[in-house]
Amino acid sequence: MPTLNAAELIELMHRAFPQARPERYRIETVADGNVRFRFMADDSDLRPGATVSGPTLMALSDLGMYFLVLSMLGPVVLAVTTSLNINFLRKPSAGELLVVGKLLKLGKRLAVGEVSVFSQGSDEPVSHATVTYSIPTES
Amino acid sequence: MPTLNAAELIELMHRAFPQARPERYRIETVADGNVRFRFMADDSDLRPGATVSGPTLMALSDLGMYFLVLSMLGPVVLAVTTSLNINFLRKPSAGELLVVGKLLKLGKRLAVGEVSVFSQGSDEPVSHATVTYSIPTES
Amino acid sequence: MPTLNAAELIELMHRAFPQARPERYRIETVADGNVRFRFMADDSDLRPGATVSGPTLMALSDLGMYFLVLSMLGPVVLAVTTSLNINFLRKPSAGELLVVGKLLKLGKRLAVGEVSVFSQGSDEPVSHATVTYSIPTES
Amino acid sequence: MPTLNAAELIELMHRAFPQARPERYRIETVADGNVRFRFMADDSDLRPGATVSGPTLMALSDLGMYFLVLSMLGPVVLAVTTSLNINFLRKPSAGELLVVGKLLKLGKRLAVGEVSVFSQGSDEPVSHATVTYSIPTES
Repeated sequence: MPTLNAAELIELMHRAFPQARPERYRIETVADGNVRFRFMADDSDLRPGATVSGPTLMALSDLGMYFLVLSMLGPVVLAVTTSLNINFLRKPSAGELLVVGKLLKLGKRLAVGEVSVFSQGSDEPVSHATVTYSIPTES
Repeated sequence: MPTLNAAELIELMHRAFPQARPERYRIETVADGNVRFRFMADDSDLRPGATVSGPTLMALSDLGMYFLVLSMLGPVVLAVTTSLNINFLRKPSAGELLVVGKLLKLGKRLAVGEVSVFSQGSDEPVSHATVTYSIPTES
Repeated sequence: MPTLNAAELIELMHRAFPQARPERYRIETVADGNVRFRFMADDSDLRPGATVSGPTLMALSDLGMYFLVLSMLGPVVLAVTTSLNINFLRKPSAGELLVVGKLLKLGKRLAVGEVSVFSQGSDEPVSHATVTYSIPTES
Repeated sequence: MPTLNAAELIELMHRAFPQARPERYRIETVADGNVRFRFMADDSDLRPGATVSGPTLMALSDLGMYFLVLSMLGPVVLAVTTSLNINFLRKPSAGELLVVGKLLKLGKRLAVGEVSVFSQGSDEPVSHATVTYSIPTES
């Protein structure tokens, strides 16, 4: 099965989503259904109170699952999110965030995973999401 | 009870979230637990295939609920999203989107609503979300 | 396309899920992606305080979506729930409940709908759920 | 802070929810925001194909979170579920199920946790849920 490693994922982001500014992501590990990456929030991610915005946390959770799917299946660019459920648990600090994701299921049609976001230096999650992707059938 | 109308909501956005570029939003109606607004997607909202990105749809859904809460309670800037569940149903076209939201419950501690996004000229939703906000207790 | 009407849905329940005691359900309408049925809660559905239990509301929401799918596709007994998200909004009274469901999407692989439950005589929902079913591919 | 241990939780179930037949639950551990219990499914929990029904998995997930909340806060019988999101991942076998839950947040107003269900002898979850409870304020 074709798979993608950390360097290949970031390279794919540069080609497919340059507007996401992939230089802000640093993938530490991605293998065997687990992913762990750092994200450097900047002013565009903040909301009043110097906290990272909900939409940024949602985008990171979606991206974490995207990394998981591509790391397992290769560059299936047609994989799309079908649903996302997120709980916002604590106020994130500004600055670097840690994103940790885990596949719960990789089926033929659907992949399901959970993605947590942490503020730097804390082991209590800022948000917890479950995300479902639809996997295109080859034809 | 203090409430906010469409013009006041947009003005509040300009003050509190200028980076969201409030000039892209046009609130058509907001009253009695219902909101309806237009959003002009631009290049930063697109993903490959000229479709509006999932994170943009999630941000719009969250914003729709924010409008609902503020329209009913006034400028409770400390109201925060506690959870969001979204289903992505169809591929949105580029261009203008219509966002329609409805309060399901306005309790003392939690407000729950549903928010659908439509491509222009279509009556089948692109996404459907349920969103919960926590309402700060005055003290 | 084969479809099922109200009488056929109840008959199918009697054959496939007799333990659900289908005599407690009374389908008022099911057509064109909408369903509306009554459910008579009994002692086994109650929790302390004479309110209908959360698991009963979840089961009703799931069943509402099942009716929607079968009403559109015929007796695809292999259709299975892949996810369910429910918000509990108000305390239901004991007695009869009204369940109202609407399809949001009927795709080739996934069907998504929303299902609300009401206490008798109230137009404010007791619960609101979105439910996703996976549709088996014929082969 | 008052807390409840495994024996006290089962005893409380016998008093408050006798119709749930608490003799079918065997709590192995409950402490520090983690719970782990066994459940013996019987005929009333099965659906065609000898698989445990979705409503049973939802009820178990809700109960897992209830155990977590009560184990931390004591017998706050007024704690109620405000939302539940569940993904059904694999077909459960009939027979004994293992339920594993973990608190993600215990706030003053809301508690959020995740609950997974496993078939006996498998380490791949049958379902994964996130559950939110509202915690009554003492007054």
